[in-house]
Amino acid sequence: MAKKILLCELNVSEGRDEAKIKRITEALTASPNITIMDIDSDADHNRSVYTWIGEPEDVLAGAMNITKQAVEEIDMAGHHGSHPRQGAVDVVPFVPVRNVEKDEALNIARRYGKFLGGLGVPVYYYEDAATKPSRQNLVDIRKGQYEALPEKMRDEEWRPDEGPFAFIPKSGVTVTGVRFPLVAYNVNLRTDDLEIAKAIAKRMRFSTGGLRFCRAIGLALEDRGLVQVSMNLTNFEKTPIPVVYDLVKSLADSYGVGIADAELVGPLPLAALEEVIRHSLRVRHFDMNQIIETHLLG
Amino acid sequence: MAKKILLCELNVSEGRDEAKIKRITEALTASPNITIMDIDSDADHNRSVYTWIGEPEDVLAGAMNITKQAVEEIDMAGHHGSHPRQGAVDVVPFVPVRNVEKDEALNIARRYGKFLGGLGVPVYYYEDAATKPSRQNLVDIRKGQYEALPEKMRDEEWRPDEGPFAFIPKSGVTVTGVRFPLVAYNVNLRTDDLEIAKAIAKRMRFSTGGLRFCRAIGLALEDRGLVQVSMNLTNFEKTPIPVVYDLVKSLADSYGVGIADAELVGPLPLAALEEVIRHSLRVRHFDMNQIIETHLLG
Repeated sequence: MAKKILLCELNVSEGRDEAKIKRITEALTASPNITIMDIDSDADHNRSVYTWIGEPEDVLAGAMNITKQAVEEIDMAGHHGSHPRQGAVDVVPFVPVRNVEKDEALNIARRYGKFLGGLGVPVYYYEDAATKPSRQNLVDIRKGQYEALPEKMRDEEWRPDEGPFAFIPKSGVTVTGVRFPLVAYNVNLRTDDLEIAKAIAKRMRFSTGGLRFCRAIGLALEDRGLVQVSMNLTNFEKTPIPVVYDLVKSLADSYGVGIADAELVGPLPLAALEEVIRHSLRVRHFDMNQIIETHLLG
Repeated sequence: MAKKILLCELNVSEGRDEAKIKRITEALTASPNITIMDIDSDADHNRSVYTWIGEPEDVLAGAMNITKQAVEEIDMAGHHGSHPRQGAVDVVPFVPVRNVEKDEALNIARRYGKFLGGLGVPVYYYEDAATKPSRQNLVDIRKGQYEALPEKMRDEEWRPDEGPFAFIPKSGVTVTGVRFPLVAYNVNLRTDDLEIAKAIAKRMRFSTGGLRFCRAIGLALEDRGLVQVSMNLTNFEKTPIPVVYDLVKSLADSYGVGIADAELVGPLPLAALEEVIRHSLRVRHFDMNQIIETHLLG
């Protein structure tokens, strides 16, 4: 049986009180059979982000453990920080990494949502778990942040998917769901002309006629005297990284501009490299199990 | 502590007697903490090849267990098969895959060689473990095969590195050592002109002026009406796959020939993909720990 890997990235609204952070963290580190990839507390954001992986049931158990502690410890009344937020446990995406079908991840997210509802916390499902189109996007759900909740929670449009239909000052609301692994890919151009980066970003991104699973903006990298096409690829199977590279390169060529270098930011699943091998080395029939290390992943 | 992965590929000269193969195989499968990647018995070759990975000490223990059984079971007197061979346990390369330095692998190979010597089997060290240049290449050591051993074992030039300086009819000799993981990379050209493949292979391979860690030959793929530049890359860090691809492509261009596709044959370490990401996606500062699955490798 192939081992399954699910990832959970859990955001809590506490990045300053070290004693609280320690107790919240311990609820996760005491959870068995998970591998914690990253813990990042930011005092300015007043937020901590926990990222861990494991078999789906173990990942869910870890999420429940840390959530129970965080809901106890954190009081959102009076929470301030520079990062947008709506709840003590703010956003909790579950991300299928390896051998996990979307339905299985959805089942985990929904059981997690029901658990939160049982703790008395209103819950919205988002992304692939959304119950209506207006809840797919975190930005839409979070509009007005925590401070807008008292009014929202009187509007039928914002009836939660789990938990009480009421403003709960201490916990606020939690957004949870399932999303495909995101690849953050930035390509830096050998020019300081920001208009070129913006024009290429416009051709690249889905919303203005580009690739189906590509979001893109043009940015200036003032320190380096370069500009950047900064992209999020929301489905690397259908919009592969090397295809994105080739198209950026071809568009840059059309402006007479070269590519200086590029960045892949943050974690990415091994599967995201499959198309790199197929496309860039022209190996049409590569089997990822040829990679020796995969034999240790079960 | 980063987990270490060493690979062992052990070749024994028995591919026909199922009862013997079963007992030999069981000596390996009963060894703890190793992951067997492949077992391939070939009756025509009269040979079985075992490939496994694990922490260096566990891999060595497994090699000792299977070797003891194979040396007991197999009598080389009267062995016939289509694959060149010299011993009951014929060739045993140890290959560093992950977080294993060459010196550590050499230590394992030498302890394995001494163990074999202790069983009364003459041993030659080859590749990175060779004690003189004439023993680096398996082809040189194996010249004349098993049948040439009675005469060789009277020549001081062939004094073994371990074990008795004598022809041992039952076991023959074993060759063991350390080699860098080999990448077999074949690029197929959109032409049936074999001379073009041969000319490109000549430019690619080290021995005729090409890349330092590249061996290459030109072949016809008659079924497909194509030709192939068939390459072995003996050090993918210093002669990376995408650089090899680019040079083949550029040489093919110079003949007006396109690349049809390519093949990566057999197992390869995850590390071989690092330069693909850096080179083909222009990501200069990629950290292989960004790949989520690496967190499960320790």
